Amino acid sequence: MALRHDQEEHRRQASAIFQAWGMPPEKADQTSRVLTWADLHGIESHGIAMIVEYNERRSNRPINFQSDPYIVRETPVSALMDGDGGLGHYTATKAMELAVHKAQAAGVGLVSVRNSGHFGALGYFTSMAADAGLIGIAATSVFGIRVPPTGGAKARFGTDPWSFAAPGAAGEPFVLDMATTTVASGKVRNKLVEGQPLPEGWGFDSSGRPTTDPSTVMNGGFLSPLGGTAESGGHKGYGLAVMVNILASCLSGSTLITDPMHSRQPKGLDVGHFFMAFDPGLFREAADFRADVARLCNDLRATPPVDPSAPVLVAGDPERSKRAAREADGIPMGPGLLARLRTIADGCGAAWHLSPATQSASVNAS
Amino acid sequence: MALRHDQEEHRRQASAIFQAWGMPPEKADQTSRVLTWADLHGIESHGIAMIVEYNERRSNRPINFQSDPYIVRETPVSALMDGDGGLGHYTATKAMELAVHKAQAAGVGLVSVRNSGHFGALGYFTSMAADAGLIGIAATSVFGIRVPPTGGAKARFGTDPWSFAAPGAAGEPFVLDMATTTVASGKVRNKLVEGQPLPEGWGFDSSGRPTTDPSTVMNGGFLSPLGGTAESGGHKGYGLAVMVNILASCLSGSTLITDPMHSRQPKGLDVGHFFMAFDPGLFREAADFRADVARLCNDLRATPPVDPSAPVLVAGDPERSKRAAREADGIPMGPGLLARLRTIADGCGAAWHLSPATQSASVNAS
Repeated sequence: MALRHDQEEHRRQASAIFQAWGMPPEKADQTSRVLTWADLHGIESHGIAMIVEYNERRSNRPINFQSDPYIVRETPVSALMDGDGGLGHYTATKAMELAVHKAQAAGVGLVSVRNSGHFGALGYFTSMAADAGLIGIAATSVFGIRVPPTGGAKARFGTDPWSFAAPGAAGEPFVLDMATTTVASGKVRNKLVEGQPLPEGWGFDSSGRPTTDPSTVMNGGFLSPLGGTAESGGHKGYGLAVMVNILASCLSGSTLITDPMHSRQPKGLDVGHFFMAFDPGLFREAADFRADVARLCNDLRATPPVDPSAPVLVAGDPERSKRAAREADGIPMGPGLLARLRTIADGCGAAWHLSPATQSASVNAS
Repeated sequence: MALRHDQEEHRRQASAIFQAWGMPPEKADQTSRVLTWADLHGIESHGIAMIVEYNERRSNRPINFQSDPYIVRETPVSALMDGDGGLGHYTATKAMELAVHKAQAAGVGLVSVRNSGHFGALGYFTSMAADAGLIGIAATSVFGIRVPPTGGAKARFGTDPWSFAAPGAAGEPFVLDMATTTVASGKVRNKLVEGQPLPEGWGFDSSGRPTTDPSTVMNGGFLSPLGGTAESGGHKGYGLAVMVNILASCLSGSTLITDPMHSRQPKGLDVGHFFMAFDPGLFREAADFRADVARLCNDLRATPPVDPSAPVLVAGDPERSKRAAREADGIPMGPGLLARLRTIADGCGAAWHLSPATQSASVNAS
């Protein structure tokens, strides 16, 4: 049974672990804020569960927990930042803040980041821009290589996510945050567990041919770019993934995902990011723009639904309903994850802020 | 049998027709240049064949063939242009030129366009930026409404295309130019003609449920957003389509595609566009950026192919091979299209520059 925690407890726990790993308090707090935001919005794949993965990377990657990101080059509309080999959350926050400040002063701000790490959910950063009344764009390179180019028999790129946010009705920005793959590998695993075939186009076998067998995809096979096979537009998802890599890696000078040294550089995680913010007020009254975004979103929500119990949604809506529920009831966490976090906290000497407060048998068993 | 024409003859023919419709020579020449570029690159859906459609729109839409696009608002990094109710090709060219000039002076240029019309292939405009050593982005709103939002039982948006180009090896920019739908309606029609079922996820019936029957899609059904059904990521293509509409329509103040007045405004076609250019030299040496783009593209091309006779390509490659062949052998045009163009040329008093030089029986029969 999942236990629920207030978002502040949740954030404090994450921060305690990061601080025990050597991260200064301000940076640990902001890193935790980004993870808690993801859990609060139902994006558990990018929430506090990532601490388990970061803990593994600690032992086999030279992550700099004392990183101090800095600006390498700057103009009134742009900056190149260096993440100093740390995790990406704090660096990415500073980068989008800088893009927002530049957009407020000059109309547009573009910030490229090199030598950074995993930064959590992109929607956190594009929402920063939307909350400031700006359009926000974010993209990042990734670690995992699991997607072949269209017609290819070898994986060359990853989930390569893209996010776009725009302010609309107050508190209801449009927030698109998407991997450029058809589905995440977790969904293929779920089909395997359920003994169900995959829908056409989700994955390929190890020779790059489409397959509907989840175990073939999980064992040496590949995920598909958005669209699936070439016939169904997979070359478009592939193209979007290359776009993301150009923006995140080529602009910043981070190691290309196709480079043999990708994820093997001696210092840091060498992930690149791209952030952009710009002011709709450059073109027309910002209030008129926001009213049109609100109207477009409302018109789409008013579309007659296929299933009367499932109204049409707009990107950002599912996450907002999750947030409302979790602000009221707390953020749920399964006993398995809680036990793993407890082990990690105990292992690094971090205080334990979550329930169950005492080390339990099930925790020891994990 | 297709007849082939030199690209200059092809362009001159199109220009003669636009001039006979009242377009000033400079604008007619540029409009034709954009159409010929599409045919030269194998994008026949956006080439000279569009003249047949423009001719139909002439009779039922108030297109302003004497349009004189102008700048409404401007900053060092941005402009809002008004297309003055004309076709979009010339206006879009001026808009991307402006974005490029601003990017050359200030590092980045964003140009929003309202009250414009169909402008041909997006790749023409993003290639302008790439040819200038810049990253280019373009998006446009469209006329046709044929795609439901995910979970919706009614079409609310269109093919809503997006383009991104970046300079790489000399003469080999990365050029992504894609509709945000799974496939164009022409591909569904081809399946119907061949008596084949559709792959899963291409389309929906009139109640918004997935179908593999092409005639159901063609008769009252809908095209799917990229990704197809919700299960296979269709909400991502849907999200990209909303992004395109926000950039093209909401920013410029063009009529929303969900507005009952969409494509019914009394003046012009009321299409909105978005263009952006920015300088990779803002972040690192431009030559290093281009070298990395070239390397990324070459690494992808070097992926072992599924089919040894079909090497892996990168966006822009298929169009470049078409162009090389057509620069050598001319642009092919079927007798049906030639006959229609001849009828249009004769009907408006435009000179005829293409073969066959004399009006033939098959032409009369069209």
